[in-house]
Amino acid sequence: MTDADAASGSVGVVLVAAGSGSRLGADKPKAFVPIDEDPILLHAIYAVHGVQEVAALAIVAPPEWLEAAQELVDLHLGCPCFTTRVVAGGAERTDSVRAGLAALPDDVDIILVHDAARALTPVEVFERVIDAVGAGAAGAVPGIPVVDTVKTVDDRGIITGTPDRSRLRAVQTPQGFLADVLRGAYAGGLTATDDAALVELAGHDVVVVEGDPLAFKITAPEDLDRAARLVAEGA
Amino acid sequence: MTDADAASGSVGVVLVAAGSGSRLGADKPKAFVPIDEDPILLHAIYAVHGVQEVAALAIVAPPEWLEAAQELVDLHLGCPCFTTRVVAGGAERTDSVRAGLAALPDDVDIILVHDAARALTPVEVFERVIDAVGAGAAGAVPGIPVVDTVKTVDDRGIITGTPDRSRLRAVQTPQGFLADVLRGAYAGGLTATDDAALVELAGHDVVVVEGDPLAFKITAPEDLDRAARLVAEGA
Repeated sequence: MTDADAASGSVGVVLVAAGSGSRLGADKPKAFVPIDEDPILLHAIYAVHGVQEVAALAIVAPPEWLEAAQELVDLHLGCPCFTTRVVAGGAERTDSVRAGLAALPDDVDIILVHDAARALTPVEVFERVIDAVGAGAAGAVPGIPVVDTVKTVDDRGIITGTPDRSRLRAVQTPQGFLADVLRGAYAGGLTATDDAALVELAGHDVVVVEGDPLAFKITAPEDLDRAARLVAEGA
Repeated sequence: MTDADAASGSVGVVLVAAGSGSRLGADKPKAFVPIDEDPILLHAIYAVHGVQEVAALAIVAPPEWLEAAQELVDLHLGCPCFTTRVVAGGAERTDSVRAGLAALPDDVDIILVHDAARALTPVEVFERVIDAVGAGAAGAVPGIPVVDTVKTVDDRGIITGTPDRSRLRAVQTPQGFLADVLRGAYAGGLTATDDAALVELAGHDVVVVEGDPLAFKITAPEDLDRAARLVAEGA
């Protein structure tokens, strides 16, 4: 594949794997905690490998775990279908995403930012995000309906409102953007709760596409149990 | 126990068990679907029985299932620690709650409205709600932090905002209120998404107290599997 081919509608992925494993009660970073035999990070990489449009992958790992991440890539991913680079994350999530963006080639058209902790995200979710951006959206994020009634509260815990649940979406990753839009938003020096919010702040429309319950984030020990059951069942 | 005793800080519970089991793929109402050996409704009743302050319970069941609900009560709950009545639910949830309210004695001071589908709600959650109302709140509902980033969207799915997650709570049941306040709110003929919203609309403050992940609502087959595992583990 030439650079020219890669530039035509090509997708770069920043895979953020820099989080701590403390909430899982693990003695290693979350991405290196095994779901079954394979660590969370490897499951996440496998998912990315299922997405045909991907031309480049930047894995953002904790600084002390770069070698371990590179070993995972070298051992398990012999086929060089696309460029894979492993880079060190920073103190905050935004620093980690920034490091990943710097490690992607300049010529990718669309950039996805994905949390490795959403290790079982189906390929279809990636495709829906890519399709929405390819169809003209500046940004697209997967989202699912919110099950519980959600309330807003003040400092004292008094309810201040009940947002219309039909208007709410719990958003997941990968979050996808036109490469120029995302790089521009990060260059602006703003901060926000997630990449979509950063791009919204920069004045662009971001659309929510259909997410998937399987794209849940592994956070607590119960989530890890759930992931293990799903993998055992062939998810 | 005399009526006078019951009136002193006593609690009435409306247990709403009128929902369909269609999302569980069941051929019977949700409350009658077994978690392990026992149906969801019975687990919910057991939880209510663990709450010392309860003086009266109104179980709201689908009209065709009144007898089945009464049998559950008769067979399993020999001890008449408090009045239990089984009444027929209506077309909408508000109709069902209204039927439950009518079945409770006039002299209870605090009324809790609880979804039977939150069958594994720990007794501590009931106690926190009762304590908050007993301490002077017009209403109290259990809530837990929202894990995912939540977005608001417009008709086209374009993101319109990112509510501050630290201000959001996913609310559960039991929702508890001063009896007069709840009866007054239902008498007003207003409609709302939940009982707390109805009481808020009527001009009263409702406070959020700490909920519990175990108070999750059994909605999808996966939730039923989770409940069965928790029951097997002794939850």
